[in-house]
Amino acid sequence: MIKIERPGRGDGARRLPPLKDGRSAWFAAINRGKKSIALDLEAEADREVLEALLGHADVLLESFRPGVMARFGLEWEAVSPRFPRLIYGSLSGYGQTGPDARRPGYDVVAQARGGLMGLTGTPGQPPVRSGAAVGEIAAGLFLAQGVLAALHDRARSGTGRRVDVSMLDAQVALLDDAVSATAATGTAPRPHGPRHPAFAPCEAVEASDGAFVLAAGNDASFEKLCITMQLPLERDPRFSTNAARCENARLLRRLIEAVTLEHPRAHWLARLTAAGVPCAPIQSMDQVMRDPQVTARNMIVDVLDKYGRTAFKAAGNPVKISGQSDPPTRPAAPDLDGHRGEILRWLNRT
Amino acid sequence: MIKIERPGRGDGARRLPPLKDGRSAWFAAINRGKKSIALDLEAEADREVLEALLGHADVLLESFRPGVMARFGLEWEAVSPRFPRLIYGSLSGYGQTGPDARRPGYDVVAQARGGLMGLTGTPGQPPVRSGAAVGEIAAGLFLAQGVLAALHDRARSGTGRRVDVSMLDAQVALLDDAVSATAATGTAPRPHGPRHPAFAPCEAVEASDGAFVLAAGNDASFEKLCITMQLPLERDPRFSTNAARCENARLLRRLIEAVTLEHPRAHWLARLTAAGVPCAPIQSMDQVMRDPQVTARNMIVDVLDKYGRTAFKAAGNPVKISGQSDPPTRPAAPDLDGHRGEILRWLNRT
Repeated sequence: MIKIERPGRGDGARRLPPLKDGRSAWFAAINRGKKSIALDLEAEADREVLEALLGHADVLLESFRPGVMARFGLEWEAVSPRFPRLIYGSLSGYGQTGPDARRPGYDVVAQARGGLMGLTGTPGQPPVRSGAAVGEIAAGLFLAQGVLAALHDRARSGTGRRVDVSMLDAQVALLDDAVSATAATGTAPRPHGPRHPAFAPCEAVEASDGAFVLAAGNDASFEKLCITMQLPLERDPRFSTNAARCENARLLRRLIEAVTLEHPRAHWLARLTAAGVPCAPIQSMDQVMRDPQVTARNMIVDVLDKYGRTAFKAAGNPVKISGQSDPPTRPAAPDLDGHRGEILRWLNRT
Repeated sequence: MIKIERPGRGDGARRLPPLKDGRSAWFAAINRGKKSIALDLEAEADREVLEALLGHADVLLESFRPGVMARFGLEWEAVSPRFPRLIYGSLSGYGQTGPDARRPGYDVVAQARGGLMGLTGTPGQPPVRSGAAVGEIAAGLFLAQGVLAALHDRARSGTGRRVDVSMLDAQVALLDDAVSATAATGTAPRPHGPRHPAFAPCEAVEASDGAFVLAAGNDASFEKLCITMQLPLERDPRFSTNAARCENARLLRRLIEAVTLEHPRAHWLARLTAAGVPCAPIQSMDQVMRDPQVTARNMIVDVLDKYGRTAFKAAGNPVKISGQSDPPTRPAAPDLDGHRGEILRWLNRT
């Protein structure tokens, strides 16, 4: 994967905090293993390099505001006739079409306008941002899907396609349950705090030393939970089906907490796990990174610096495919323009 | 896409609230256009139907707890030698390997154990669940990516692969910024409430009639924001770079709100939009569903019932691909076992 950057400053993410030895830890993590070339798209010589790259590439990815690629004469409509096999993937705040297409987007803006922020938080309190950059990342995941689908299609058709994904659209897609519920009930759901709106109990509850999470969305799990907690509610008509439990979720939560408050989290996690009821501690990120299941799955990988030293940590690849390697150490993120020579030689332009 | 269900009760999601005319609105939305056949995997005749389906299928998707498919003799190791082109995709709570592989998972459990819940909420308040089922959906998106990559690979290699994705792994991958920050600083990030941890200002702020969101993560946007708000901070060393603004984010928020509180949200959204600063209202789901940009992108589609009447609404497809149709109306979700005859005829088994 070749990263094309502006000469001089390069990708602004190179300066995002926190820095380690002057380098952005996040930039290092998400750009691991890429190559970098700095190109001035308005200079003739660099422009020729870009054209040569397009001739060799399977996929071009860009995340400018709609209209910016056209300023360089690089919009899909201009590029596609000359490189008909090229797949052209665009990620933007609002998409390539529609009245607000040319507005700038941002993760938190997509979370707010797309409905996620209004559904996240404690009832009666101000809304909060989801702690992951879901607005950006969901769009990236959908874009990857579209590009892979286009590659699969190209193997048969021989032609590339334009894939157009927006952060706002991706947010709406993530909220499919809220869309269908709003339409069916005529009322927009409100934030549910620590619980899932369609299952009960399925939430954070308080133990004597803090909160943990449990989920018993079907009757079999709920019966196991009742037996484990010695809380005989499974035949009570207020709680005997998931629909009834959702209706009476606030009462159910009090009845459960009246029991869970008696013992610490570890007590309940051990017993519920033994009984087969889904449950978990609410972990901070340092706990997540030491979690035996997370490390057994190689989900925290080392990222090297350019001298080959272990320098950064990054999230691993969650897509485990048989026969594909999943190494615990990943190559360094590139210096700005660090692969110019190598790329020009590959293009036979030296 | 053929949905294989248990005879009798079928998919438990058929009963998830809210119901409309006795049917789950969410089930209708996410199962639109699928076909259904009910198979008892322990009965000889139904088992033969399954085997015939596997002979015709490109992809088998399953989301049982690891070990359950093996009870039916349908684990990857058993199926793959007989159907070597079949791609076998598994989604689970914890993955097919590791010490906790066989535990049951759940969206809220993945959000808690994977770190998202501990990063979502207001500092000093209990953690909250992200308002979208990010624990489940992110895993589904990664699985779709893996299956498409395997299809692309199969076009060259001729052989299928096993794709193994877990909700816990997917959560960790979503939190790539928190992973790299925790490792670089030695400290796990805490919830940031309404703001993004790596950009400032990038958050919800209060206007005279409620909160809205703005994002000015780079210096150019911040200068536009300062000019629009007549708040001359862009040369103040406490705020002149994004890193400095992150250091002084709480102070910056107060200085901005001292201005924004003077006028209602609409005043600021109009002016910031005109200046090119990313901003948005915090919309409830009914507002999202009427948003002109959302509807212009066909992101709210109609779903029919089995009589062909418009009955439900669903989120549209956020992956817009040139030359692919994106109809505003989608076919109905299936009745349980509703396509048995059609599927048996397709398999030449009638």
